[in-house]
Amino acid sequence: MGALDEGHYHSEIENEVNLELGFEVQPETVAIKDAVKVLLQGLGEDINREGIKKTPFRVAKALREGTRGYKQKVNDIVHGALFPEAGLEGGSGQAGGVGGLVIVRDLDLFSYCESCLLPFQVKCHVGYVPSGQRVVGLSKLSRVADIFAKRLQSPQRLANEICAGLQNGIKPTGVAVVLQCSHIHFPNFETAFLDSTPQGWVKILVTSGSGVFEDEKADVWTDFLSLLKFRGISIESAHPRLSDQSWCPSQSCGRLGQANSAITNAVLSILKSLGEDPSREELVGTPSRFVKWFMNFSNSNLEMKLNGFVRSRIDTRIHPGQVGSFKDGICSELNLSFWSQCEHHLLPFQGVVHIGYYSLDGLNPVGRALLQSVVHFYGFKLQVQERLTRQIAETVSLLLGEDIIVVVEANHTCMISRGIEKFGSNTATFAVLGRFSTDPAARAKFLQSLPDSCSAGK
Amino acid sequence: MGALDEGHYHSEIENEVNLELGFEVQPETVAIKDAVKVLLQGLGEDINREGIKKTPFRVAKALREGTRGYKQKVNDIVHGALFPEAGLEGGSGQAGGVGGLVIVRDLDLFSYCESCLLPFQVKCHVGYVPSGQRVVGLSKLSRVADIFAKRLQSPQRLANEICAGLQNGIKPTGVAVVLQCSHIHFPNFETAFLDSTPQGWVKILVTSGSGVFEDEKADVWTDFLSLLKFRGISIESAHPRLSDQSWCPSQSCGRLGQANSAITNAVLSILKSLGEDPSREELVGTPSRFVKWFMNFSNSNLEMKLNGFVRSRIDTRIHPGQVGSFKDGICSELNLSFWSQCEHHLLPFQGVVHIGYYSLDGLNPVGRALLQSVVHFYGFKLQVQERLTRQIAETVSLLLGEDIIVVVEANHTCMISRGIEKFGSNTATFAVLGRFSTDPAARAKFLQSLPDSCSAGK
Repeated sequence: MGALDEGHYHSEIENEVNLELGFEVQPETVAIKDAVKVLLQGLGEDINREGIKKTPFRVAKALREGTRGYKQKVNDIVHGALFPEAGLEGGSGQAGGVGGLVIVRDLDLFSYCESCLLPFQVKCHVGYVPSGQRVVGLSKLSRVADIFAKRLQSPQRLANEICAGLQNGIKPTGVAVVLQCSHIHFPNFETAFLDSTPQGWVKILVTSGSGVFEDEKADVWTDFLSLLKFRGISIESAHPRLSDQSWCPSQSCGRLGQANSAITNAVLSILKSLGEDPSREELVGTPSRFVKWFMNFSNSNLEMKLNGFVRSRIDTRIHPGQVGSFKDGICSELNLSFWSQCEHHLLPFQGVVHIGYYSLDGLNPVGRALLQSVVHFYGFKLQVQERLTRQIAETVSLLLGEDIIVVVEANHTCMISRGIEKFGSNTATFAVLGRFSTDPAARAKFLQSLPDSCSAGK
Repeated sequence: MGALDEGHYHSEIENEVNLELGFEVQPETVAIKDAVKVLLQGLGEDINREGIKKTPFRVAKALREGTRGYKQKVNDIVHGALFPEAGLEGGSGQAGGVGGLVIVRDLDLFSYCESCLLPFQVKCHVGYVPSGQRVVGLSKLSRVADIFAKRLQSPQRLANEICAGLQNGIKPTGVAVVLQCSHIHFPNFETAFLDSTPQGWVKILVTSGSGVFEDEKADVWTDFLSLLKFRGISIESAHPRLSDQSWCPSQSCGRLGQANSAITNAVLSILKSLGEDPSREELVGTPSRFVKWFMNFSNSNLEMKLNGFVRSRIDTRIHPGQVGSFKDGICSELNLSFWSQCEHHLLPFQGVVHIGYYSLDGLNPVGRALLQSVVHFYGFKLQVQERLTRQIAETVSLLLGEDIIVVVEANHTCMISRGIEKFGSNTATFAVLGRFSTDPAARAKFLQSLPDSCSAGK
């Protein structure tokens, strides 16, 4: 077929976006790459190892792309997309270009948390009341929202800036913005080994209004929220507005210790390279908060736990007599939570681990807590999901016998906050050892026991 | 804040994507623009009127961007994104870089139907079994799928090409692809005025497998589908594979009449400009099918219906005595279906119209069928949703009195199949006349009566 004769394609590095000419040698790119090398070394990593040697470039590209909103202007977006549209011909009321609410719902965006530098997800709903006999192309509401999302933000400021941007750009009778924001939970490293409940996401709903929406008790808000409500959105929390000062888990993850100054300076350098002012109030503590979260993924932090783990393993191997008879013998520990850090993009991925094994008495001979420790041991470092899955399987096989199945289900921050922006996508990886690799019925039995809903997130 | 001092932004026309230099004057762009002008004239439109004068360029840009996959190569995507990853250290089984299923679920894509040239939505699930001690970056599964989605496709060929592309690009032990495709229903113009049931989408599920997945009865398929199943995907229809020859409604929308040859030739010109071969089997009937669907939105087609409508309107005004007493008097006709064509992008938008009015006896004095006709009358033409809403409200106020509320809820094909790709987003527009514009309680009562779920689609 002629159409499949592929022409020459000018590929950029990794092909993720069309980069500007010279992107790689721009001072901001170089500065971020250098800073990321410091971060990697701070984790005790070899920055030349395969897998992470291109990570500094990937991170620089993702961060600069993900904050491109600093360089974008609302008027460039809406210019040429304001269309003349008549209002009512007669009678009293609102419709068309001189009134009549226009709503675009369920726009998926992501933004960067100014408190910890991690991306957060945004479900954005925008409404406006046209005036001046003109309406704006519907897609522009999404594009304008994206200008402000692609910056370091807090949810409330993001809502306010989208609202003000649209108000100034379109000059309508009023603009209303409702954002449902979801932020990844931070691992509490100290307690993560004891509590294996998957934590989902920190969520907040914020609103902002201008013009006829400026008064949050105005009836037009009721109209707007009515049409969101029946899309399954709870609006109880919309009024009064929640404070978003403390929504980011970094604000409540305990006192900041003495941070490594080289690493903190590297984060400062990144902030500057993105065009931010690190001395603005909301950003002053950001480098320290970032470092506190980030250093959870340092290899060395886990040596202590490893020691405890090795001891448990030996104990278990000494007392095999614990195992008795039980039905067909397939047992499972489901929904063990994990946090990890994608070594390709230095972005978290989190989710759940399901482990299947054989036990004649139906009992887990080593206890759920030890399995959770194994999961955290391999999770709290720079990883890829495939390796994490294999390492858990190999280690668990020393504890629970050679017949093991491990399924890891995860949400990858890097799948939403970079070029592909695949909101809602998620991943599953398998490892099968011993009987589980040769017995499809055993695999099927285990897979059917997995929980129905995606415990990995949301 | 320093960061909000917006720098200079090199804006392209409408800012939707970074266009190649000279995109606007390339012969393919010019040819598509010229062809779109013929299409617009074929609908009886004035190609210089505000609102559509830039439509030829918008359509050319969307079509060329949306079929950019013809120029992309799998190897450019996966090159540099294959990472060394060890397999199991000991024991029997599969995991890591030498086995162990890797699945990425719920990737939202869109493609173009080769049968009618309209975009269709794709929920894509990809699995592969690594080999050769290497794994591919997870996002590349999405990027490779997108290369093949951004072409004129049928669901089965799309699945096969994604599968073959990944198999050749990554050379794993096997690749499995499951696609859930959704195609807009075509209006059956002749019967649409009688049947007002919202039709949702035509759906099909297709699968493709290579390597260990080549045998669709292989146990590894069971593993793969198990992990899709518990995400709420029905797999009953996955085996045996459905034929997708007839999934597109254009294949069953009746005999093709004598098509306008200028318009048909314009569509042929578009196919060639996209790099396609219009003589390949699947495309031979495409121009005629496109024209049949497209001409539904010709203004002139509706004169006959307009005549009938005007007569009914007069009848109603003559017999106001039909209206009696009934509670507070707010009545509604909900979920009147509509099809329309976005005049900015020549892409369909469809959904439902809800109409509220006052009636003392609780009866609709003109009948649901007439309201449905009004909706179709304003729907079946080049439109914007704001105008459609106003026109319906104004006309209905002549039939049902001056107190009218109209809510239009729609899915816009142009919101998913162009630059912003906002899958799942949808729009709502309001018109309020008379008492509904001044009485918030009346609006609230009507809005609360709207159906809970999005009847507009899915």
